[in-house]
Formats: sequence, structure tokens, C-alpha cells
Amino acid sequence: MDKKRVVLALGHKALGTTLPQQQEGVRSSAKIIADLAEEGCQLIITHSNAPQVGMIHTAMNEFGKAHQDYTASPMSVCSAMSQGYIGYDLQNAIRAELLSRGIYKTVSTVLTQVLVDPYDDAFYKPVKKIGRHLTKEEAEAEENKGNYVVQVEDGRYQRIVAAPRPKDIIEIDAIRALADADQIVIACGGGGIPVLAQRSRLKGASAVIEKDLAAGKLAELTDADILMLLTGVDQILLNYGTRDEAPIGHMTTDEAKKYIVAGQFDEATVQPKIVAGVEFVEKKPGRKTIITSIDRAKDGLLGITGTVIE
Amino acid sequence: MDKKRVVLALGHKALGTTLPQQQEGVRSSAKIIADLAEEGCQLIITHSNAPQVGMIHTAMNEFGKAHQDYTASPMSVCSAMSQGYIGYDLQNAIRAELLSRGIYKTVSTVLTQVLVDPYDDAFYKPVKKIGRHLTKEEAEAEENKGNYVVQVEDGRYQRIVAAPRPKDIIEIDAIRALADADQIVIACGGGGIPVLAQRSRLKGASAVIEKDLAAGKLAELTDADILMLLTGVDQILLNYGTRDEAPIGHMTTDEAKKYIVAGQFDEATVQPKIVAGVEFVEKKPGRKTIITSIDRAKDGLLGITGTVIE
Repeated sequence: MDKKRVVLALGHKALGTTLPQQQEGVRSSAKIIADLAEEGCQLIITHSNAPQVGMIHTAMNEFGKAHQDYTASPMSVCSAMSQGYIGYDLQNAIRAELLSRGIYKTVSTVLTQVLVDPYDDAFYKPVKKIGRHLTKEEAEAEENKGNYVVQVEDGRYQRIVAAPRPKDIIEIDAIRALADADQIVIACGGGGIPVLAQRSRLKGASAVIEKDLAAGKLAELTDADILMLLTGVDQILLNYGTRDEAPIGHMTTDEAKKYIVAGQFDEATVQPKIVAGVEFVEKKPGRKTIITSIDRAKDGLLGITGTVIE
Repeated sequence: MDKKRVVLALGHKALGTTLPQQQEGVRSSAKIIADLAEEGCQLIITHSNAPQVGMIHTAMNEFGKAHQDYTASPMSVCSAMSQGYIGYDLQNAIRAELLSRGIYKTVSTVLTQVLVDPYDDAFYKPVKKIGRHLTKEEAEAEENKGNYVVQVEDGRYQRIVAAPRPKDIIEIDAIRALADADQIVIACGGGGIPVLAQRSRLKGASAVIEKDLAAGKLAELTDADILMLLTGVDQILLNYGTRDEAPIGHMTTDEAKKYIVAGQFDEATVQPKIVAGVEFVEKKPGRKTIITSIDRAKDGLLGITGTVIE
């Protein structure tokens, strides 16, 4: 039996916020991942980085302000650092869990950049809040630097950046080579480091790429069989909060699109998963997207629970 | 003609200290690296991380002290972050330089851990200074946490950690797979994240691995043809500072060992390069170590300058 290639996207629940939470989170996630490996999946793993990159960005830049020798670290640099920060714990937890089950397999993290389009509409309406809360004066200073801010509560502001769509994955050949060697690869952490192409150079973008869309692009470009998006619920709900509320077991891409148009899904959390899932499935017959909770990942794979887009 | 596999170790000069220096440094280094690629070398690149990891460690931990939500980041975590911080700029500079010469080649960074021995003598006499200067009170607080400190000037202290020898490279199969696919790989940044094996788990060690020794281990385990260690001088000098001072063009491993015993080389800077070079060359016939300056790397490869151990 051929191995199924699965691109697995871990959300915030799998990683927590602080370092001890992260180390505990990756230990639990590693068990799920090892279960999938034992089921014969060839795994490419991606993950969110939201609290981690915010913490790194704040630490590096607050420190930079107070120490003239050091210079500010833009979001793209902090995103690269967050891939190291998270990948290190995640790859070790997976390696240890596999070894404890007698499986020897190399698990590595590839620093990944994701190309975005400078003309992406998202750059005209940034929506992703990043970093700590700012005072009015700090917010004005950010605006004077050309950054966008939004008032989050009375007198408290926060920076916002664009969330452009992923167009390409710069290190895709490296990720493919490792996956083809049947190794476990961690890539596109935090949706990847967003970069813009300027002739032969790449320039970090002040942006955040939706992790689920990056996972979909990763699945497409590595020609995965399954895109598995882990979230807080076992199944996506239709008619959420109404008397007709019901879990979705299966949906076709046409049904999914109809539901999107009908505004069935929360735009910030559920919808990106559905969009990523539909796009991946539509590009080639035989592909499948599974959306479920981390605790039920194996059951999702086996068709016992989860929302499947086919 | 078969491609020669070269493990190239970049020193501090190639990377600078601040982010703008690093971005300028990697652009110059990328030209050298592209020259070597054009000469038919298949490249695996490693680099130092000394000022970068210190800066990250200080930023993360000073910030952590002031913000209860966040927790301290040990050296191993900061080392992982520094591989992202440096690898991101380095891989982009190399990619852009190659593209500008019409060469398309994937360049990626693999997060790398290097196994050290808990019984390594180095743990009993830590020598590597890390992080910022501390006051007497701060130094005592570090000692109370079980860390070592040393007085660097009157009333100023600094933490010191062990510099154990590299025993194995955890992600070696990933590095090999990428190198075998003729991609350029950046690995073992800063000598690698030092880890100790505890049953199936790996635990970050409070240590720093000498970058040149890690480069030697990387060259050995990837079965490289050439280990190229870049430093501040074109050639290593014999009888440094005396009337008999003379550059070394070639030396055998026996000659090199004789010079080491005679105390010919500075223990902190030159000697690790010679030791790494000798160990690499001795393990298999036909191997070569070249030590030269970054500006003369191509000349070193072509045998025009450099100190060669054969």
C-alpha cells in the first residue's frame, strides 16, 4: 500500500503561548502525529505562530529601543525566529514520541518563505492584529512610520498588518526532497515568512499569511493526498447557534462554496479553512480535506469524525 | 566531472553584529559562495552566531523578566532562533546572487541540533563567555541558579558556558537528502543547538559548540571532499610574531599535530580550525581542509592561497 501524503496544520491549541505551555503542547501533539505516522501517513507539518511571533517581536523591538547597538527586527525576521523557536520543540517532541514507539525517522524544520503578491487586495485593508497594546502616542508613532494601527479598546491601540494570499513557497524543492525521502518535515511555520519578489531578491513583507491557506498551498505544491486542518471542534457546524444547527460530515466543493456565499462560516476562523480545503481539493481528483480537532485527528483520518471536503 | 562537495564555515566577519551589518555581510558572502558554486562545488554552509545569539538571549530574557506572561528562553532555544535569524538573510542573499548569475538553485536552512556528551570534560570547565556584562548582584543570582560566571573586568561579570565537542548531528539525514539533491543547505548554524540525549528525548544543553568543530563533523557525516574554514587571514602563520614568522601553504596531519603540541596556534581562534581540519582529513583518504580568508575563498579552492591540510 502506498503511503498517503498528509499535510497537517496545527493550530494555537497544539502549541500554547508560553514556552512551558509550548513544550507541553507539542508533547500531546506529537502523540497524535505519531498515531498518523503509524497509520501509514507521510507527514508534512505546519503550525500557527500567533502568540510566539508577537512575543518575539515585542521582546526584540523593546530591547532594541533601549540598546543602541542593536537594531529593530521587522516582522519577517521575527517570523523566521519563531519558526526556529517552535520547530525546535515540535521536531524534538515528534522524534521522541516516534522513538519511544520504536520508529526511527528524521524530523526536521525547514525555514520557509512564502511569496505574496504586492498587489494583493489585502495590502489595502490590513486586518491582522499583531504585537502588544499601544498607547495613543505609540500608535501615532507607528502611523508616522507608515504602519497601520487600530483602536482595540478605549485609548488602547494595536498594530494591524495585511493577510495576503500565499502565491508560492520559495523552499518547496527542499520540502519535497525531504518528504520524498519519507522524512517528516515541519515547514511554513506561522504561514511562512511573507516575502515579495523584487527582481532576483526577496523582501520581507509587513504581513501575516493565514496558516490554513499556507497549508493548502503546501499540500497543493507537494501533491498531497490529504490536507488535514486541526481546529477546536470535531466537526464544522452548519446553521451555528440556531435550532437547525448540525455538524457537517461531508460536503462537496460546490456545497462548501454555497455555504461560504450564504455566510455560514465565521470569517476569521472557519472560513479560511473551508477556502483552503476547497481550493486544494478542486485542483486534482482524489484529494480530500479533513477538518477536525487535534484529539480526533486519527478518527478524522479513519472517517469516524471530522468534516470532509471531497 | 563529479561535483566536489564542500562544507563551508563562515565566521563572524561574514555576518557582522547588527541586522543591517548582517544584511550587508551576507550579500558579500553570497558572492563568494556563488563563485564556489560556479566552480562546480556542491555546498553545505555553516556559520557562527556569536553576537546574534547573545543579542537574542538578552532580549528574550530581559523582556521575560519584565512580563510575567512570558518565560525565560534558555540558550538552546535562543540558538534555534538565531538559526532562523541568520539563515533567513543568508539563504536569501545566496539565492539572489545565484539568480542574478542565471543559476536557479534551492537554498534552504535546516534547523540543526548537535549531540554532545554529558561527560565531556568541557562541562567541568566552562570557558565560553556569553551574553551581556552583569553586575555583582546579577552574577551572584546566576550562580545561585547553577550557572557559571567569570569576572571580565573590575566589578563586571559575564556568564560562561561549556564548549563540548560535537558527537553527532541529529538532522544529518535531512541535510544529506538536500545535499544529494544538489541543493545548497545551510545547517549547524552557530555550531548547532547543543543537545544531550536522555533516553528517547533530547534536552538542550547550556553550552556552545565550537563552529569549526561542528563544521568538521558536518563534513565528515556528509562525506564531503573539502572542508573550507573561513577566517580573518589568507593563511595560517607559523612562529607568529617572531623573526621566523611564515605562512603555511600545506601541512600534513602529522605536521599539524606537531605544531599543535608545540603551541603554535592561538587556542581560542586558530587551534579549533586545525583540530577540525586534521580530524576530517584523517578519517578518509583524498579529503582536504582549506583554511583561508573569505575574500580569497575561490583562490583557496584553486590552490592559489590558503593553508591546506592534506
